[in-house]
Amino acid sequence: MTDRGNAGDGLDVVTVGNALVDVLSTTTDDFLDAQGLAKGGMALIDAARAADLYGQTGPGTEVSGGSAANTAVGVASLGGRGAFIGRVRDDTLGEVFAHDIRAAGVHFETAPATRGAPTGRCLILVSPDGERTMNTFLGAAAELHADDVSPNLVGAAAVTYLEGYLFDQPDAKAAFRHAAHAAHSAGRRVALSLSDTFCVERHRLDFLALVEHDVDVLFANDSELCALYETPTFDDALGLVVRHCEVAAVTRAAAGSVVVGREGLVEVPAAPVTQVVDTTGAGDLYAAGFLVGYTRGYALRRCGELGAVAAAEVISHLGARPERPLGELAAALLQ
Amino acid sequence: MTDRGNAGDGLDVVTVGNALVDVLSTTTDDFLDAQGLAKGGMALIDAARAADLYGQTGPGTEVSGGSAANTAVGVASLGGRGAFIGRVRDDTLGEVFAHDIRAAGVHFETAPATRGAPTGRCLILVSPDGERTMNTFLGAAAELHADDVSPNLVGAAAVTYLEGYLFDQPDAKAAFRHAAHAAHSAGRRVALSLSDTFCVERHRLDFLALVEHDVDVLFANDSELCALYETPTFDDALGLVVRHCEVAAVTRAAAGSVVVGREGLVEVPAAPVTQVVDTTGAGDLYAAGFLVGYTRGYALRRCGELGAVAAAEVISHLGARPERPLGELAAALLQ
Repeated sequence: MTDRGNAGDGLDVVTVGNALVDVLSTTTDDFLDAQGLAKGGMALIDAARAADLYGQTGPGTEVSGGSAANTAVGVASLGGRGAFIGRVRDDTLGEVFAHDIRAAGVHFETAPATRGAPTGRCLILVSPDGERTMNTFLGAAAELHADDVSPNLVGAAAVTYLEGYLFDQPDAKAAFRHAAHAAHSAGRRVALSLSDTFCVERHRLDFLALVEHDVDVLFANDSELCALYETPTFDDALGLVVRHCEVAAVTRAAAGSVVVGREGLVEVPAAPVTQVVDTTGAGDLYAAGFLVGYTRGYALRRCGELGAVAAAEVISHLGARPERPLGELAAALLQ
Repeated sequence: MTDRGNAGDGLDVVTVGNALVDVLSTTTDDFLDAQGLAKGGMALIDAARAADLYGQTGPGTEVSGGSAANTAVGVASLGGRGAFIGRVRDDTLGEVFAHDIRAAGVHFETAPATRGAPTGRCLILVSPDGERTMNTFLGAAAELHADDVSPNLVGAAAVTYLEGYLFDQPDAKAAFRHAAHAAHSAGRRVALSLSDTFCVERHRLDFLALVEHDVDVLFANDSELCALYETPTFDDALGLVVRHCEVAAVTRAAAGSVVVGREGLVEVPAAPVTQVVDTTGAGDLYAAGFLVGYTRGYALRRCGELGAVAAAEVISHLGARPERPLGELAAALLQ
């Protein structure tokens, strides 16, 4: 397997986010309650809390993760040209992360940090119903600086995709804004994922300003969109977001997604899944499918359908990256 | 999750083997051919070859492994009291290994090495038919010495189980013999797994002497048993092994297993599996189930059936340790 992406060749999507290795283990709702963890959410934790929590969880499975990184892998799996920008440390987990994302065909050139915190990891507790609760020790991922965002890389990609989780670190926030400006300066599009309801609440005003001025394609789930606009109903939030973005794709779990944009409002059903094993990565892979369609100029419905197929594959197994080539699963939609 | 095993309380099974973290990735038979890898076998590789091979394989999943360690986890999952002896390094993968085996309820006290090679890993290439081909960089696992084998721990366990792979290292071989003698001195039983046909061929005379003089319970598959005795037929090999061991349990993949011992010859069918995803750990978990029955004094047929149920669970998913509590799956057999 070789690194297929080449910044010089032109890219479909470059994603910017936290470079993390996921540590997945199964849990019970009682354990989440006892630990005070909000089911379905993402909490930032420090090294001491990470060690404490890890010590109390069951046997784990380590797989490369990170929201925006998962999206880049999904883009490549669908046959798109993807790149990722994010920071690991020069340690074993950093090598694992770099190996896995390159082996998936994603261009990845961010230099590993040579000192400071170790490669970041996300302790993901999967409940019996497949819902995941995430506890992130950012580690080296928080070292991402504006200098890591190469204007050449961003300028070479049709879309630069940013994960909202980056807003939890001041330096990463600067890198985030730098990337958005570089993309627009090159006449490219900027996409944003709101990532998490709690993340939206922590940074609501920042996100609002960004959505109003800098974001062309917005990804969110229904809760995150309502949290952003503080509206009582989903329809109210949709009415506001269409004023600000060229297109917004809003997922609603088993109810599928709603896309608003140049073609009005399109409702897209979820793709069938035999058994939901682990919802980690559902939103990341939806965004991957959607963006592959978007960069090819497909109708919004087909973009949403590509997102639905990609999300359905990733929730049918443990881990947030596709196990089967998505290009084969979505072949009928990619023609 | 806490370490449930306590050497002072009496143990059912202590296993001794290579402490490894598995790196699982999917492959094609063409890739195995191009790399000169014998499908279904285990090859020992050095650090340089490990890095080279890893660089050519697809995205991986890291899960704790090691043949005898998997068996100890299977024993605990079935409600038995299990312990493991094996060496990791004081690095990230070593922490992962120690966390996972303790979280599975296995007593594990071997001190990590503080210098020398990193924690060992096994690159496992899984073919589309579920067969696995293993490439092991032993690392710190090869540092296991006779001093690591506590006579108290071995003396506290009804059975001491040794994996044949240990014979690939002179120091580990000495630890192996030390463990067998300590067990017998305490009036306990010694079990051995032949591990791999190539491993048997590398150490045939050593294994023969051990089986004749020191092994009470032998685990092998049909190929390994024929390789040990250099017999043309499986029946010839069975005729020889009954002269040497109290009991031999020989697996034959989808054809189930044959157990020979005090009750004569018993044929045990394989347990049903919907889809074979990854055969890694099948033999390890068969041994776990068998030994739980054996230490409870069950009839050989029921011991074999417990092995079959445990093996069926582990081959139905990626990874060599059970994902579901085996005690629940095998409840009817454990009464």
